[in-house]
Amino acid sequence: MEISLADIESARIRIQALAQKTPVAHSRLFDKASGTEVYFKCENLQRGGAFKIRGALNFLMSLAPEERKRGVVTYSSGNHAQAVAMAAAHLGVVATIVMPTDAPKAKLASTQAYHPKIVFFDRAREDREAIAHRIANETGAVILPSYDHPWIIAGQGTAALELLEEKPDLDAIVTPLGGGGLLSGTLIAAKALRPNIKIYGIEPELADDWYRSLEAGERIAIAPPATIADGLRTPIPGEITFPIVRALADGVVRVSEEEIKASLRFILSRMKLLTEAS
Amino acid sequence: MEISLADIESARIRIQALAQKTPVAHSRLFDKASGTEVYFKCENLQRGGAFKIRGALNFLMSLAPEERKRGVVTYSSGNHAQAVAMAAAHLGVVATIVMPTDAPKAKLASTQAYHPKIVFFDRAREDREAIAHRIANETGAVILPSYDHPWIIAGQGTAALELLEEKPDLDAIVTPLGGGGLLSGTLIAAKALRPNIKIYGIEPELADDWYRSLEAGERIAIAPPATIADGLRTPIPGEITFPIVRALADGVVRVSEEEIKASLRFILSRMKLLTEAS
Repeated sequence: MEISLADIESARIRIQALAQKTPVAHSRLFDKASGTEVYFKCENLQRGGAFKIRGALNFLMSLAPEERKRGVVTYSSGNHAQAVAMAAAHLGVVATIVMPTDAPKAKLASTQAYHPKIVFFDRAREDREAIAHRIANETGAVILPSYDHPWIIAGQGTAALELLEEKPDLDAIVTPLGGGGLLSGTLIAAKALRPNIKIYGIEPELADDWYRSLEAGERIAIAPPATIADGLRTPIPGEITFPIVRALADGVVRVSEEEIKASLRFILSRMKLLTEAS
Repeated sequence: MEISLADIESARIRIQALAQKTPVAHSRLFDKASGTEVYFKCENLQRGGAFKIRGALNFLMSLAPEERKRGVVTYSSGNHAQAVAMAAAHLGVVATIVMPTDAPKAKLASTQAYHPKIVFFDRAREDREAIAHRIANETGAVILPSYDHPWIIAGQGTAALELLEEKPDLDAIVTPLGGGGLLSGTLIAAKALRPNIKIYGIEPELADDWYRSLEAGERIAIAPPATIADGLRTPIPGEITFPIVRALADGVVRVSEEEIKASLRFILSRMKLLTEAS
């Protein structure tokens, strides 16, 4: 399924009742420290604390009424789980979320606040995808992937639409790169609107599956990465996201754990914004 | 000198080159926890990290050219010092700032970044106002007060103009209350634009000079307060701000140190915004 700017524009209309148009922050101190004029699309201030609600909501709203009735099942211990729980509650869709028994308590509590069905699994002995597929087979629920789906990618791309509307003259956009949903959506939206804009993905040196895969020209899996950027620990590029990034991105840049921590500290202490390492 | 809505509207035009129009944040979680629909005017994201730049810049830009040449002198260990240093550097005005030898290192560094003249004093043995007045007498510099001046009050009132433009239907506005500059400016702006709006000041129980003064009907000084809200430690209401607050405010509410800390924690962990206790 080809994804186009039109899909992202439609997604924007679908999600606007629940997803917020987040502000764009600017800091002269950051500009000075970085030697570049930088604007921050504050998805940390998004509902649920991350951009994930965009894709989750677009997915749920793109389902046929009959599919919505069957419910959805997803697996995540992070922001995606919370986003699916929130979006499903908003739409009255039954959501089942497969979470590890050792999921961070704060993420678990934020997810439980929306009363989804939660199925716990033992990370050491069980495979969450297998559990999700079993549930889907048994109940008829639709699998809701966390990044590797056109509806998710189109939803995440809505952040770039908003950003370019507010800052039309950007030379480049830089996004974090885990599964590749946000970067893929950004590439499709921004390259269509601004053919000359440069777009880069950023991943931790400790989780450089994208860098290696692009060098090799094929999807390469790495060992489970230990980076503090826990949202970017996917060990292999997505099947759908990889060809999009390969065709359209201007590069993937790797950053050290120290660089990630220094940025977090700067943004918190000087810009007063709490961000995740991812 | 009477202060009117027109003064605040003029201030807004004067300051717009340097002061930012800050975003208004909203959190369903906060609404749920508080049982009220609440919007936050994010002056923590303002240049310099506080609303103080509004008043400082309006003051400097209201000076006659001849006065600007003489420079300004102010005393503060906090956000006002930084705001004056920043605004003065922006306009090429020489600023002298009287700071205690034990000023917080971060505030000192943020102030020094704009290269004002800094005169240190010993908090235990010297009086900063006396030092500032001596400097003013010797050098001809203009004293730039931190709250008790019509230009400062008009500058701080610009935050309320922005807020009501973005959220015209507010039932009430609540502001922190230290010297009373922000509350006074807010009262003048908001009561002129929305005669039925309720406006409250909030001060720490440990620094309740306003509450006591309003009860007594006159300005009452308290012992130096020990609250963690270090920007609200002024021990007595201002001469100019007191009659404004007394005439126009709908009340002053006191909060405990525990309530202040709980709010800080909630806003940081759930809303991703770093705020000061004040």
